[in-house]
This record gives sequence, structure tokens and C-alpha cells, in this order.
Amino acid sequence: MKEIVFKPIGYVRTKESVIPRHWTISQVEGELVINPEYQEGLRDLKPGDEIVVIFHFHQAPPFTSEHLIQKPPHLGEEKGVFSTCSPIRPNPIGLSVLKVLEVRENVIRVKGLDMFDGTPILDLKPHVKE
Amino acid sequence: MKEIVFKPIGYVRTKESVIPRHWTISQVEGELVINPEYQEGLRDLKPGDEIVVIFHFHQAPPFTSEHLIQKPPHLGEEKGVFSTCSPIRPNPIGLSVLKVLEVRENVIRVKGLDMFDGTPILDLKPHVKE
Repeated sequence: MKEIVFKPIGYVRTKESVIPRHWTISQVEGELVINPEYQEGLRDLKPGDEIVVIFHFHQAPPFTSEHLIQKPPHLGEEKGVFSTCSPIRPNPIGLSVLKVLEVRENVIRVKGLDMFDGTPILDLKPHVKE
Repeated sequence: MKEIVFKPIGYVRTKESVIPRHWTISQVEGELVINPEYQEGLRDLKPGDEIVVIFHFHQAPPFTSEHLIQKPPHLGEEKGVFSTCSPIRPNPIGLSVLKVLEVRENVIRVKGLDMFDGTPILDLKPHVKE
């Protein structure tokens, strides 16, 4: 199938070096630095909002067939990769739900980070619940 | 910033031609046909599961700065693109939460589709709630 090419819209900035394995257990704060060309699209984000951040697991090792079944570090059992949040997956795409603390120009201050400093951001979406 | 290249892991198959604008209001059934090389990674998906499907809005027109503010068809007001689920966004990445009805080999039967037939699938993840 045809390759699909994306370009990051920004990146994660954080001074924390210990990053929790998942946003559900993270209190880490940091910033999403969005390219100024997209700043106008941030207009309706405000403190208290929850946003879905789609990002690139840029430090993940390449996926091979050995990673189809993995044992998540916090679980005692093996799982099929699509039932895990492992960064080692056919397309290394990550998803986190973060809380907006502040928006200043093209920078969004957030809480709940589980991404490393420098992580490329692909998209931001509203967190829609059923 | 550096381009990121992904390759679809499969595609959406549905006979429905009228597709709701969002998974939250969709009862449409169809199938996620995953490349057989990844079939083992589907091992732990079972009927009743909710999964997050990350996909490519492959029919979306190209994004330009005119799309930074958009008026979603179901809302009366304009919104910054990152506060909408519009397919016209800097990276045309879609996200839907679907219900698993059945898994047979490399095909997942699902309910709640808001993607067109032929939509390339990039990733499947468990639907993690806080």
C-alpha cells in the first residue's frame, strides 16, 4: 500500500527527564510548541480543555515480526501489539490525552505528558467522549 | 521539520455509502482488513472491545491557511482547526473509537464507522479511559 507522508506541526518541550509510561498516570508538565504558521488554529483552546495529541514515537526501535506479541512492563502477560500502547508498533504513532494549562501565542502549556522532550507532534484534536 | 513516513496496516471495507460525520453518532458496520503480516498482533481483540482506529483522511482536500478557521457543518460557529474533527487539517489524520463485533483471521468486524470504504488504516490501539 501507498506510503503516507506527514510533517510535524510542532514538538514537545519539557525539562523533566523521568517520563511516566502513560498519560493516565502522569502529572508531568511541559509545552507543546506549535509552528507559528498554525497558531491561528489554536484560537479556541483554553485552560481546562482536554486535548488528544497524536505524535511520533521518534525514539522507538524499528518494528519487526518479533514485536507482534509483547509483554508490557506493567503487566504480567503477553499481548498482541494492537492491544498495547507500546511505542514499538508497525507505525510508531502515539496518542495522549493532555490537559491544557495555558495557551500563549503558539505554545500550549500542558499537564499529563508521557512524551520525551523533542517528540514530534502530528495533530491536536478535541477529546470527544461518547 | 523532518518528514515522517507511514505505511497503512490495512484498510476499511464497508458497503454503506452514507457515512455519518462522526463515530459518536454512527451505527454503521463494516470491516477493518488488516495486512496478514500483522494478524498475530490482533490476537487479544475480542467482541465487545472498544478500539481506537488511527487512519488517513485520504479523500481530504489539501490543507491551506484558509482552513485554520473552519465552520463545522453541525455547529453554528467558526472554530480553530485543532478544536474540530475536520478532515481538512495540517496532517490529515483521523481518529475513531469503534466497537469490535468479531475478529476472524485478519479481518475485524466493527460498528460505529465514520470512514469511507477504502480508508487506509495506520494504527489500532486499546481505548484507554482515565
